[in-house]
Amino acid sequence: MANEDAIAILGGTGDQGLGLALRFAKAGRKVVIGSRKADRALAAAEEVRAAVPGADVVGYENSEATQGPEIVIISVPFEHTASTVKGIKDVLQPGQIVVSMAVPLAVAIGDGAMRTLGIWQGSCAEMVQTLVPNGVHVVSAFQNVSAHRLRELEHPVECDVVVSGPKAPREAVMALCPLVPGLRAVDGGPLSNAKIVEEITALLIGMNIRYKVPEGFGIRFTGLPE
Amino acid sequence: MANEDAIAILGGTGDQGLGLALRFAKAGRKVVIGSRKADRALAAAEEVRAAVPGADVVGYENSEATQGPEIVIISVPFEHTASTVKGIKDVLQPGQIVVSMAVPLAVAIGDGAMRTLGIWQGSCAEMVQTLVPNGVHVVSAFQNVSAHRLRELEHPVECDVVVSGPKAPREAVMALCPLVPGLRAVDGGPLSNAKIVEEITALLIGMNIRYKVPEGFGIRFTGLPE
Repeated sequence: MANEDAIAILGGTGDQGLGLALRFAKAGRKVVIGSRKADRALAAAEEVRAAVPGADVVGYENSEATQGPEIVIISVPFEHTASTVKGIKDVLQPGQIVVSMAVPLAVAIGDGAMRTLGIWQGSCAEMVQTLVPNGVHVVSAFQNVSAHRLRELEHPVECDVVVSGPKAPREAVMALCPLVPGLRAVDGGPLSNAKIVEEITALLIGMNIRYKVPEGFGIRFTGLPE
Repeated sequence: MANEDAIAILGGTGDQGLGLALRFAKAGRKVVIGSRKADRALAAAEEVRAAVPGADVVGYENSEATQGPEIVIISVPFEHTASTVKGIKDVLQPGQIVVSMAVPLAVAIGDGAMRTLGIWQGSCAEMVQTLVPNGVHVVSAFQNVSAHRLRELEHPVECDVVVSGPKAPREAVMALCPLVPGLRAVDGGPLSNAKIVEEITALLIGMNIRYKVPEGFGIRFTGLPE
């Protein structure tokens, strides 16, 4: 399959998705940006090339972007996550890894971003799990990484990324983290832990507001073996 | 009222409570250890004095320990939290601050410590809030501080403490954190955030198991203003 080593980022036109696209491209990885509209994906790819000279990046409509890459990151707001996954369901192939990074912030229903909604399946990631075809793996990651910090390309992003899901796909996603200076992967165990990791985002957003640091906080775990 | 500046720790005979007692005593604060049985509280106080020469520490039955100190930390396992609070209800006075540090780990019902129970009120801390008399403040703190690290008196405890609750009592509890080298207080906003902080403990316990670090991890937030 073409582009297997590329990283697809659906919603790569948004703040956090574009931030990841910039960072992965800067690390020399091929990036496929997906969007509902191909022209928006193309414009985002152009933006990445402008910021990262020589970047290997393309832009496609979501379904097309999904075809090929082993890892497909869903980087759309929570309220568009289910529809985005449903929109690529027919092209997802067994063995592909779908990364859920959305957080069910209550902004989705007009309430605040420092609170979350309860999700029937337990978390956004587990909701995604119920929507993908058999044989497609779902991994939860990147929720707590500040979009703003990702886009400050000259600075490391001081944050641990808790990665949860089945073992082999989880390790494949953990391997992406060191591509971004400052990011460290932490083994987050089974996908059911996504519930906790997603809620940490709401806590961080509340802190950003209380401490007036709109650039965003990160999280580190202490005591991890080197 | 006598002992107002003392810090009461109910369940100060347990691992985490005794750890806090040792640290606060080492910082020169008067500590009142509470237990269901006065003799166990006395034995724990003796243990603190043995480890921290000159420690100002006493031991009483819980109700007695509660009378005086502005801050009363409830450091019993989750499944004994409600009964402990009910047991001191009649002596709690308006203006006192009750600190909830228990986590509704599923061990309480024979399941694992890397999972939590859903609490009707939202969190253990909010459950405590429904049990105290009017005018008594409830603050959530210290859940993620490793008992083992607390008891290594010669080492700092590398951990941020997210403190949630009404503003003035929250600030009073935040002021306790720097008494323990390495602990840093983080403003955790309203008590409803306790839900997230409590669940982080379950995530940390799962990590301790996966990374085989029984001494326990801590958590740090990056990007906080100095």
